[in-house]
Amino acid sequence: MDYRSAGVDIDAAHDVVRQVKGLARRTFTPGVLSDIGSFGGLFALDTATHHQPVLVASADGVGTKLKVAFLANRHDTVGIDLVNHCVNDVLVQGALPLFFLDYLATGRLATDVSTEVVKGLADGCLENGCALLGGETAEMPGFYADGEYDVAGFIVGVVDRERLVDGSQIVPGDVLVGLRSTGLHTNGFSLARQILFERMKLDVDAEVEELGCTVGEELLRPHRSYLGLVRNLLESNPGLIKGMAHITGGGLTDNLPRILPEGAEAHIDRDSWTTPAVFQLLQREGAVPEEDMFRTFNMGIGMVVVTSAESAPLVLEQMTGEGVVIGTVVEGQPQVVYV
Amino acid sequence: MDYRSAGVDIDAAHDVVRQVKGLARRTFTPGVLSDIGSFGGLFALDTATHHQPVLVASADGVGTKLKVAFLANRHDTVGIDLVNHCVNDVLVQGALPLFFLDYLATGRLATDVSTEVVKGLADGCLENGCALLGGETAEMPGFYADGEYDVAGFIVGVVDRERLVDGSQIVPGDVLVGLRSTGLHTNGFSLARQILFERMKLDVDAEVEELGCTVGEELLRPHRSYLGLVRNLLESNPGLIKGMAHITGGGLTDNLPRILPEGAEAHIDRDSWTTPAVFQLLQREGAVPEEDMFRTFNMGIGMVVVTSAESAPLVLEQMTGEGVVIGTVVEGQPQVVYV
Repeated sequence: MDYRSAGVDIDAAHDVVRQVKGLARRTFTPGVLSDIGSFGGLFALDTATHHQPVLVASADGVGTKLKVAFLANRHDTVGIDLVNHCVNDVLVQGALPLFFLDYLATGRLATDVSTEVVKGLADGCLENGCALLGGETAEMPGFYADGEYDVAGFIVGVVDRERLVDGSQIVPGDVLVGLRSTGLHTNGFSLARQILFERMKLDVDAEVEELGCTVGEELLRPHRSYLGLVRNLLESNPGLIKGMAHITGGGLTDNLPRILPEGAEAHIDRDSWTTPAVFQLLQREGAVPEEDMFRTFNMGIGMVVVTSAESAPLVLEQMTGEGVVIGTVVEGQPQVVYV
Repeated sequence: MDYRSAGVDIDAAHDVVRQVKGLARRTFTPGVLSDIGSFGGLFALDTATHHQPVLVASADGVGTKLKVAFLANRHDTVGIDLVNHCVNDVLVQGALPLFFLDYLATGRLATDVSTEVVKGLADGCLENGCALLGGETAEMPGFYADGEYDVAGFIVGVVDRERLVDGSQIVPGDVLVGLRSTGLHTNGFSLARQILFERMKLDVDAEVEELGCTVGEELLRPHRSYLGLVRNLLESNPGLIKGMAHITGGGLTDNLPRILPEGAEAHIDRDSWTTPAVFQLLQREGAVPEEDMFRTFNMGIGMVVVTSAESAPLVLEQMTGEGVVIGTVVEGQPQVVYV
């Protein structure tokens, strides 16, 4: 008996590592000291530009959105999802991404699928100016169904201590600027799949007129990175953005309160933006209560930026039409009330 | 329809987060600025002690060792495995761990199992002086079998640039000091499980006289962290350790060459240490060729430290009986030859 007969092919794994190396090298930024294949990835922190560097780190997965990628046999978008999700999670504290690592676990290692996934990760990293510093590709026979995999991402960003964004300066009278999402992003997929595939019995390739595309195209549209929209404001107007919330699992209802200080309540005007078609479809066909919709899906708003009423016009201008005032902060408890 | 009926229980997830918070807080070191629940975990890098900080990052999983944890219904050791594996992966480049994040993916969220896993992670972090800074607990219905999960870890350590350990100074004449492993650590489990459970038809609770314990006890013994053994030498004698290799997937055969410069070949004396009983059992009962054993398992050596012949006695003394000279570096190509 040997390892290959037990389902693990070290040579195939080495092939994947070679492919990954080529893809990752394109993402390397000046801080990167190591090539992939070192035990750990090396990143030199620039202490000249960061006097009091605070590292901001986050770990994430893509969730059951992966099941849609399996159905559609399309594996180059979930990596972009993962990177952008991670970038947003450190961005909301004012941090710009430095580097990213992935964990990719498969049943049997299908070299082409792994390479597609990593290509998406590398594309996402390139777009965000973030180095793909390393990762782990685990072949776990008998663990994942054939052709299936799970992928997790880990990001480290940096922000100077005095530029940390933490919501503590939010006060009643402040304005909530919502930034448009591109669709479901990476949340609510267990419910969405149940409605679309089980209840409506749609195929992943089915064209849905209401959506203007196929089910698969709608569901696989990548999670949006808000780095490009927000970066300039963070760098040129420190303090102007008082808080940011990334609208992921738990929706506006659970994520916005995470940055509200005591005494601050978020009032959201439901009519201030139009819920994109996919959410209307899901709500109607699944007969999902409104309250559950707002705790499961982003409902068209992928990020909320909190700023003073005076600064709101400048923030909106920077958002180039992708931002909309969705509500205000009033006196109360850290919670969201839909008005 | 709602999210709970689709198999996702956000309230249970919140419960887990609350439990995790308590466990993680015990691991917090002075650098930690955030509580878990922020979008990203915050860690202030001490620039007074690190003039040219190089961040060393690694991602890892536990692999199919998890299957043994499922069989034994014991979930408090795999977290220690994961942390120690990650710690070793940055340690080999001279870095001391700063913080760790986990990704825990389950089918249905069993709160008690998740808590046990995270308890192991927190214990591992505490032992290594590493903060458990955050993580993601993903509930993915229809993805993992009931009662099963996958867990990945991400670590960031730091080393001053002039203290990086990279193997570049290794020359013929240097000595290979092997540090004892505690067992299989986290590699070779697909083959080990096939031999023990399928060919030998052993139960996880079966006592094996040759091992002096049950199959489950042997297999679940945690991956060893070498931080405690090596740290003092790294801090007090920079440059004395020329290179370190963590013996994981690929064994001595594939891992040692990763740190050998051109012109250096590793000659390993097979008789310089006694292969622990578990590897003898696996080799005999699986009729595994010797070559495959050394490319699949650590064979009793979990870490190799390379030092000059003159420094070898000092290194051995620091290893308190846990180190043994297993070979030398000779002129040749970066590869391992068993002599």
